[in-house]
Amino acid sequence: MAQNGTIEDAKAHKFNPHFTQAVINATGPKATPRVRQLTTSLIQHLHDYARENELTVDEWMAGLDLLNEAGRMSDDRRNEGQLLCDIFGLETLVDEITYKLASDAQDEPTATAILGPFWRKDAPQKAMGDTIVSGIEGKGDRTYMHGTVTDFRTGKPVEGAVLDVWHTAPNGLYEQQDPGQPEMNLRGRFTTGKDGKYRFYCLRPVPYPIPYDGPAGKILQALDRHPYRPAHIHFILTAPGYKPIVTQIFDRNSKYIGDDAVFAVKESLIVDFKPFEGDPNAEFELPYDFKMATFEDAKKHSVAGATEVSGAV
Amino acid sequence: MAQNGTIEDAKAHKFNPHFTQAVINATGPKATPRVRQLTTSLIQHLHDYARENELTVDEWMAGLDLLNEAGRMSDDRRNEGQLLCDIFGLETLVDEITYKLASDAQDEPTATAILGPFWRKDAPQKAMGDTIVSGIEGKGDRTYMHGTVTDFRTGKPVEGAVLDVWHTAPNGLYEQQDPGQPEMNLRGRFTTGKDGKYRFYCLRPVPYPIPYDGPAGKILQALDRHPYRPAHIHFILTAPGYKPIVTQIFDRNSKYIGDDAVFAVKESLIVDFKPFEGDPNAEFELPYDFKMATFEDAKKHSVAGATEVSGAV
Repeated sequence: MAQNGTIEDAKAHKFNPHFTQAVINATGPKATPRVRQLTTSLIQHLHDYARENELTVDEWMAGLDLLNEAGRMSDDRRNEGQLLCDIFGLETLVDEITYKLASDAQDEPTATAILGPFWRKDAPQKAMGDTIVSGIEGKGDRTYMHGTVTDFRTGKPVEGAVLDVWHTAPNGLYEQQDPGQPEMNLRGRFTTGKDGKYRFYCLRPVPYPIPYDGPAGKILQALDRHPYRPAHIHFILTAPGYKPIVTQIFDRNSKYIGDDAVFAVKESLIVDFKPFEGDPNAEFELPYDFKMATFEDAKKHSVAGATEVSGAV
Repeated sequence: MAQNGTIEDAKAHKFNPHFTQAVINATGPKATPRVRQLTTSLIQHLHDYARENELTVDEWMAGLDLLNEAGRMSDDRRNEGQLLCDIFGLETLVDEITYKLASDAQDEPTATAILGPFWRKDAPQKAMGDTIVSGIEGKGDRTYMHGTVTDFRTGKPVEGAVLDVWHTAPNGLYEQQDPGQPEMNLRGRFTTGKDGKYRFYCLRPVPYPIPYDGPAGKILQALDRHPYRPAHIHFILTAPGYKPIVTQIFDRNSKYIGDDAVFAVKESLIVDFKPFEGDPNAEFELPYDFKMATFEDAKKHSVAGATEVSGAV
C-alpha cells in the first residue's frame, strides 16, 4: 500500500488530503515531545504554504538554490542564513518570543535586540576607559560612551559585568568584512568593578547596507526593498548570576531609524548622541545605563522554556 | 517611530500584533505579483510558526545551523538541501502540485515522482539494447527492461523520446557517492526510433538509505525515523513537443514500499520484476510503457502556472 492515498481520495480534493498526515505520522515513538511538536508544525506549515500558493517545482528549486548558496557562503566571518532570517524579521521575532520583556518600562531590564551576523567571540579585553578604535584615526565622530550596569530590581551596581561591544567603521563595514581594517577593530570587552560603571571611546556609527552580494541581496532586490540599517551599536552583557542581554542601541537622528532592513529597532533602545565639550578625544557623549536581571528574576519575565543566548554565554 | 509598535500594543497581546504586517509592508511597489505573494505568505507562515511554537533563539539557531551545514555540503554531486525537503515530503508535494496528474487512470500520462538529489546531467548516450552496468559484473540481479513510449491521447509511438535512466548499485550507492564505481555507472540515455520502443539492461535495484551523515540524517534520527527508500529506478523522459516526465518506478516486492523515507511512492508507479527465461544476460524482465503528453494536452492536466522541470530540459 503506497503512502500517498488512493486515486479516489486524490480526486475528491484538489490535492491528496492524506499526504501531510502521512509525513507527520512517520515520526517515531522515540522523538522527544518538543522535537515532535516543532517538526509536526513545520511539516504542516511547509505543506500549507506549498498548497496555498500552488508552489511549482521550479519555484521550490529556486528557493532551495538560494538556501544552499547561503550555506555555502557562511563561515565564521559571515552567516548568510542568519541574514536571510533577518530580512524576514524572524530573528527579531524569536528574540521577542524568547525574552518577552515588555520593552522600556522603568522597572524592567534593558530590552533585547537581535545578535545579527557580525558578532565575533574573543573580542579583545580592554582596560576601562580605553578606545575600541584602531587604525582609522581621523575618521568618524569620536564618542565617549559611559554609564552604569545595575540590577534592574534592586538598582544596585553589578560588579564583574562584561560588556562586549561592536559596531561598524565609517565606511559601513565591520572589520571582518573589510581587509583595510585591523583585526578586531571597533570591538572590545570591558569588565565593571564594584561601582558597576563602564566607560570607553568608540565612534558614532553610521547607517550601512547589510551585505547584498548573496541570497539575501537577491531577495531584497526582488522585493524592491533597501538593504540599510540605521546607525547602531551592538552589545552583549554577561555577569555572574545574571541573564545575558543581547541588544543594540540606535541613534535617534539616523536615517532608516523607522525603516530598518532587519526590523530590530525598539523605541526603548533609541538613544541621543550629545555634543561633548572639554574632552579632546571625543566630539560626542553617549550616556547609557544597562539594567540586568538575575536568572531568578528573569524567569518571571520570560516565556517558559526560554534558554540562554546561543553562543553568547 | 520604531517599527515594532507601542508598548500598549505589545502588552495587549502576547506578542507584538503589528510586527508581521510591518515586515510584509516593507515590500516595495516594484516586486512582481508572484514574488509578493510567495514572500508575503512565507513571512506569515514563518512568523505563525515561531509564535505558535514559542520558538526560542536557541531552537532557531539550531535549525539555522542545520540549513547552513546543508548548503556547505551541497555541490554538483550532492544536494543536501533537497534531501532536507525530501524527508519532509516537500518535493513530493510540489511535484503533485506542479503536475497534478491524477495517477494511474488509463487515459492519462505516466505519473510523476520526485527528481531526487542524485540525477546528473550528461549521462552517457547509449545504443538501444546496451547495458548501463559497468565495472560491477557478477553483482546484482541483471534485468532486461523494455517497453514503448506512446502519446497518451493518440496511443501512437513517440519518436525521438530520450529516456534518461539512473539507479543505485547493489551496495545501495549511486556512482557519484561511491569511489569504487566507474564514472556514470548505472546511468544512461536511450533515444527511441519510429516505433517508440526502448530496451536496455540494468540491475534489479535494492532499497538503500538516503545519506544520513548530514543535517537530514540528524533530523531523521531526532524524529526516530529510518532513512530507507524502497528499491526504485529513476527516469526523465523528454521528447520534442512533449512535456518532460520526471518519475520513478518501484519494485512491488521491495522492503519499505509502504514506508518510503521521502514519500515518493505512488500506486501507479509500482511494478513487477518477472523471472526471465532464455536470455543469458538477465535473470529478470521488466516490461514498462511510458505515456507522454504534448505540451498542449499537458496543460489541460496541469495547474495554472506550472513550469518545466528545473534543470531537466
